[in-house]
Amino acid sequence: MSKDLSTARAKLGGTPDQWVVEEIGDGNVNMIFRVRGPEGQVLIKQSVPYLRCVGEAWPLSVQRTFFEYTAFKEHAAVAPQYLPQIYAYSADSTCMAMEFLGEHIILRKGLMQGIKYPAFAAHIADYMAKTLFFTSDLFLSAAQKKQKMKVFCDNTDLCKITEDLIFTDPYRESPQNRWTKPLLDPIVVSFHQDKRLKLAITEMKGKFLMSAEALVHGDLHSGSIMVNQTETKVIDPEFAFYGPMGFDVGLLLANFFMAYFSQEAMGSRQGERNEFEEWVLDQVQEIWVRFDQGFRGYWDTHLEGDYLSPNLFKGVEARELVVAKRDEYMANLFQDSIRFAAAEMIRRTLGLAHVADLDTIADPELKAQCEYRNLKMAYEMLVNPTQYSDLEKLLALAKKSRQLKISG
Amino acid sequence: MSKDLSTARAKLGGTPDQWVVEEIGDGNVNMIFRVRGPEGQVLIKQSVPYLRCVGEAWPLSVQRTFFEYTAFKEHAAVAPQYLPQIYAYSADSTCMAMEFLGEHIILRKGLMQGIKYPAFAAHIADYMAKTLFFTSDLFLSAAQKKQKMKVFCDNTDLCKITEDLIFTDPYRESPQNRWTKPLLDPIVVSFHQDKRLKLAITEMKGKFLMSAEALVHGDLHSGSIMVNQTETKVIDPEFAFYGPMGFDVGLLLANFFMAYFSQEAMGSRQGERNEFEEWVLDQVQEIWVRFDQGFRGYWDTHLEGDYLSPNLFKGVEARELVVAKRDEYMANLFQDSIRFAAAEMIRRTLGLAHVADLDTIADPELKAQCEYRNLKMAYEMLVNPTQYSDLEKLLALAKKSRQLKISG
Repeated sequence: MSKDLSTARAKLGGTPDQWVVEEIGDGNVNMIFRVRGPEGQVLIKQSVPYLRCVGEAWPLSVQRTFFEYTAFKEHAAVAPQYLPQIYAYSADSTCMAMEFLGEHIILRKGLMQGIKYPAFAAHIADYMAKTLFFTSDLFLSAAQKKQKMKVFCDNTDLCKITEDLIFTDPYRESPQNRWTKPLLDPIVVSFHQDKRLKLAITEMKGKFLMSAEALVHGDLHSGSIMVNQTETKVIDPEFAFYGPMGFDVGLLLANFFMAYFSQEAMGSRQGERNEFEEWVLDQVQEIWVRFDQGFRGYWDTHLEGDYLSPNLFKGVEARELVVAKRDEYMANLFQDSIRFAAAEMIRRTLGLAHVADLDTIADPELKAQCEYRNLKMAYEMLVNPTQYSDLEKLLALAKKSRQLKISG
Repeated sequence: MSKDLSTARAKLGGTPDQWVVEEIGDGNVNMIFRVRGPEGQVLIKQSVPYLRCVGEAWPLSVQRTFFEYTAFKEHAAVAPQYLPQIYAYSADSTCMAMEFLGEHIILRKGLMQGIKYPAFAAHIADYMAKTLFFTSDLFLSAAQKKQKMKVFCDNTDLCKITEDLIFTDPYRESPQNRWTKPLLDPIVVSFHQDKRLKLAITEMKGKFLMSAEALVHGDLHSGSIMVNQTETKVIDPEFAFYGPMGFDVGLLLANFFMAYFSQEAMGSRQGERNEFEEWVLDQVQEIWVRFDQGFRGYWDTHLEGDYLSPNLFKGVEARELVVAKRDEYMANLFQDSIRFAAAEMIRRTLGLAHVADLDTIADPELKAQCEYRNLKMAYEMLVNPTQYSDLEKLLALAKKSRQLKISG
């Protein structure tokens, strides 16, 4: 692939003078162009040496396109059906030519419009099970894994953004923090003074920095996923690195919880609100259950890595042992996931980058109400995670939090 | 440094025709030469593309000299007083010229001779506190740490030896395993069938593969340390990689426990045995206490890394928070250390590579007795680590295990 443009050319058809280029990006990080030719379209994603939404005041290595390209390549080796096709990559011009997803929309926008995606949960669960299992020590030899990890050791600019914006700033005074003032002022003050919360978030930051479990997407929120009724495509893996599996799972679940808590404000389809709200929460359940199933399945069939030599588990109790280890592993992964989910829910309400689901609620009181519920749930998940050791308890917490009033 | 031989030349004095080269190595892994000149001596350590003690049947990348050299360089930046001086390194000839430690002996040999080293515990505790703290996310930025980690992602040949010989083979049937037959046969059979033990060792293997906490030495047993009454020098860091801190601490403590359990067989100085046995056990205490103190000290003065932004802990409760986090961290590190110690104690009795302390005991019954005690203690540490949450309990376990009879 790399610099060979023949696939992109074929996709567009005609000759370069017939192609129309248009900047269409509204993303925070990069420049996005659409190229239209007589026969089709191609998307060009180009990085500039700064954060696009801030400008040159926030320098950012253009190498991020290399990491995005490499993450796409690694993940496409195991889950190509959930990724756009990459036609070409050029390190010199720091850009990629890729499939133009004209028939998909950003999942977040779909959810805000109250659109159900019946195939989504199964798709994203399969994507996560595949990309996480097959890039981990469960499937790879230690040497294979470390060769992949080595490449992403350089992706520190983007990891640093996460370290600051998710794991640090929301828990301290920072000029970059934003929240719905004055209604959320009291909870901000209480969070900034909360000892248990600070100890809990530092534990998760430690995992983010030190737990090299799998090649994670690194930014798997509902704005990094494009969907329609039959297809799911995960985009924007420029934050990819070897990190904790629960980080991807957690960010995804968090974005469904935030969609859930924002539904009350989606007035335009008031009549259908309750039912869609239920559907959103059901997705959390379906995503985890299917992910858990898929991951356990690969454990049974592809435990080929250096971590758990099948040979070690030989003998009469082998099956029982493998199952015990797998149960323990999945329980830990669930705990990590809900704590990373909580970190995402908090930073999207009190940190720099918010989510449109909550941020576009016009009525400040209603907005604060929804955000308050989101924060209260997240607090519980982060500080008392073992109280939510299974899905049922977690979903009950969501429903309970949904009833809270900001005054009480 | 690198290929510049001027330091080594100056050390030797005279001209090359006056230098005498002699192979003096008895190590498992590399070739060791002593070069004598009119004014002094230099040690040359050269790697061959196989494991020296096995031969070409066990191929091993000569790149290990590069990792050893790089680890020396990284650790010398913070703890040079505990390392031999490195005069030159040549990638082409896969060798290093270094300080000849003519006035030191291998710690293991000293301990077997019943020699006390009054300065050792303080030295090695300081070495570990410095090398572990200052290569971790506690002191470095995430970007700095990952740049260092990246280099060692290639040191997979040697990590694989550890993965197999420490974390896998001793817990399964393997043609490489050795133990004192037939007296230890029953415990070998019970270990190979023990479910809790297998789950416990896989947890530690997982940490070895995935916990990138600090640039660990990777093989810090009493054969990797040279001592005399006033100096301590740590050698042979070719197993270095970014791994769990407890791995270094644990291996070291394990080798003191094994020295302790072997004392009964050190007949030549029977009269002094009890007192030296006590001294050996005291060293475990002194090493941990001093390490803990040193590490906590750097936490107070050099918490400059990306992990725990001091800024996050600002405010009235800051001091209390930092202390709470540090207590939690040190408690976890102690737990990791005793479990890695247990893994080392087991593999040195049931795996391929044994330690001379136990292995040279001539009387098979006495040897099995000492090894049995070592194994029983290790089992407890690995399977019930939270029962030994502090030093006092751990030392009590050692003394209790010391009284066990293989029959009972």
